[in-house]
Amino acid sequence: MKKGKQTWWFENRPVIIGTATVVGPDEGDGPLAADFDLVHPELDLQQKSWEKAERLLLEQASDLAIKKAGIGKDELEFYVGGDLMNQIISNTFAARTLGVPYLGVFGACSTSMESLAIASMIVNSGNGKHVLAGTCSHNCTAEKQFRYPTEYGSQKPPTAQYTITGAGAAIVAPAGSGPVVECATIGRIVDLGVKDPFNMGAAMAPAAVDTIQAHLTDTGRSPGDYDMIVTGDLATVGHRIATDLLKRGGVPMEQTVFADCGLMVYDVDRQKVQAGGSGCACSAVVTYGHLLKRIEKGELKRILVVATGALLSPLSFQQGESIPCIAHAVSIERNEVQP
Amino acid sequence: MKKGKQTWWFENRPVIIGTATVVGPDEGDGPLAADFDLVHPELDLQQKSWEKAERLLLEQASDLAIKKAGIGKDELEFYVGGDLMNQIISNTFAARTLGVPYLGVFGACSTSMESLAIASMIVNSGNGKHVLAGTCSHNCTAEKQFRYPTEYGSQKPPTAQYTITGAGAAIVAPAGSGPVVECATIGRIVDLGVKDPFNMGAAMAPAAVDTIQAHLTDTGRSPGDYDMIVTGDLATVGHRIATDLLKRGGVPMEQTVFADCGLMVYDVDRQKVQAGGSGCACSAVVTYGHLLKRIEKGELKRILVVATGALLSPLSFQQGESIPCIAHAVSIERNEVQP
Repeated sequence: MKKGKQTWWFENRPVIIGTATVVGPDEGDGPLAADFDLVHPELDLQQKSWEKAERLLLEQASDLAIKKAGIGKDELEFYVGGDLMNQIISNTFAARTLGVPYLGVFGACSTSMESLAIASMIVNSGNGKHVLAGTCSHNCTAEKQFRYPTEYGSQKPPTAQYTITGAGAAIVAPAGSGPVVECATIGRIVDLGVKDPFNMGAAMAPAAVDTIQAHLTDTGRSPGDYDMIVTGDLATVGHRIATDLLKRGGVPMEQTVFADCGLMVYDVDRQKVQAGGSGCACSAVVTYGHLLKRIEKGELKRILVVATGALLSPLSFQQGESIPCIAHAVSIERNEVQP
Repeated sequence: MKKGKQTWWFENRPVIIGTATVVGPDEGDGPLAADFDLVHPELDLQQKSWEKAERLLLEQASDLAIKKAGIGKDELEFYVGGDLMNQIISNTFAARTLGVPYLGVFGACSTSMESLAIASMIVNSGNGKHVLAGTCSHNCTAEKQFRYPTEYGSQKPPTAQYTITGAGAAIVAPAGSGPVVECATIGRIVDLGVKDPFNMGAAMAPAAVDTIQAHLTDTGRSPGDYDMIVTGDLATVGHRIATDLLKRGGVPMEQTVFADCGLMVYDVDRQKVQAGGSGCACSAVVTYGHLLKRIEKGELKRILVVATGALLSPLSFQQGESIPCIAHAVSIERNEVQP
């Protein structure tokens, strides 16, 4: 494996001028409920299929983000998005509804930061003015596709995670009011041979650590340069492993708050979510809904969001392959902070 | 639908310093056989599954492209790729083998130009030096996933297309010897309601036309500014529809050669490929294997490759949805041509 430059610098300091988050009932019952723009009381959103419900989550988040950014729909120039569904179909249909130039991306649950990184590069390069980064996941579509339909009521081990139902969207622009996307570190695949799809946290933890280390090396920073370093969806098991691996790797994590979106979005002790949350929308709704509000309030100055993704397919699992994992990190800071 | 600026300009003129193409037996039996770097005599590449064979095609194309570019494996900085498989698993495994920072993308058969556009933007922005754009498809994995396993021997209507078995990879760099990636036009979703997965050409043709028109509007050019405008995989049916739509739209296509990679890769009259070729690798192997060689020889000065993609999933088809389509266009020219 190569040790090199994995970090993109956005020297023109693109700004997130608007975000929106839409979630389902379980996330609305969690500790961050007040931070989400729209909480649906039912999982089906009164749609005829789970897939249609997932698509609607993203369409609502996109619409709301455009409104909150104070731009017209016709001012949106590009849309970068992806999700967990085969052929990222939820994003395709949402992009059809929006009718703007569209780049589909796939990084499983790391899609949130992959799309934000690419959107920021488009804006930073001057090739786009208003670019939307969006992602979504739905508990029932993900269970149906990757494991068993929820209607079967199958049991899960405590290492399993609970795919969150939600969508997050952010609009990046060359200037305006909002937090700045400072740089992004693109991850490489890390696969230490874990094969259990009910233990994604353990599979993904080494990828998160690899990207955090690459980011710190590339930027010459230490964890203390961030008020918070937050992984996407490692949950209880993966967070413990990542903490341990960083310690062994000599990364002084006690200088900063090391957290995980999958542990923040639910009350893991009270809600029946096994080890914690997961899914494309996990890091998206926590970052766009909760963390950016804390930046706005001045409680956080600079954060590193390390979205983690398990890139398995049901077929690769059936064929006995291990789970290739990845993590993409984006540094977001208050507008007044100078690099 | 918005009429606006869909085109990215690469003012630093990134260069394709190396490409490679690997194909299967049917493509090796076609008119472009001599242009491919490696022709496999058997469909299974002596692997245990079609999926492993598809992955190997891409790994071989990536390795060869690196060699032909004259760089070391450790000089490759980013890898942008995608394919038709659920969770783009062929690219994920190839990226695991390469071990470099990886961005997964999905645009169905438009992935070839989507990945080349993003790779060129990374290089153009100075955030990467050697970036690989790769894609692959395999007839038997695609049939199995989207229609029926080929072992069933099911019949197909003449409007159906034949997914090509192959992989194409290109390495983009800030300077060097090779054709220049001048600009890229990102497509939006066009869906006129076609629901028949055995008639992708008809579904995709309007998307190709939409992107060609957007490109000409954005650049202020006419078709005559290109020696060739080539679509990805419209095949017989779609090519006829696109030609007709362009004529009706007042685009003077007789000024240039309007061709289709799906019609170039096979001898459609002789080979049993129904309406012609399709698949992620279709435009990739024709562009990287054949067209860039013609540019190198001086037979072509500037071409526009309009890779077309049908973004359906088997599930969206089963749920009665129509087929959302997209096309991404990349303009490639000889190094001496000034913009």
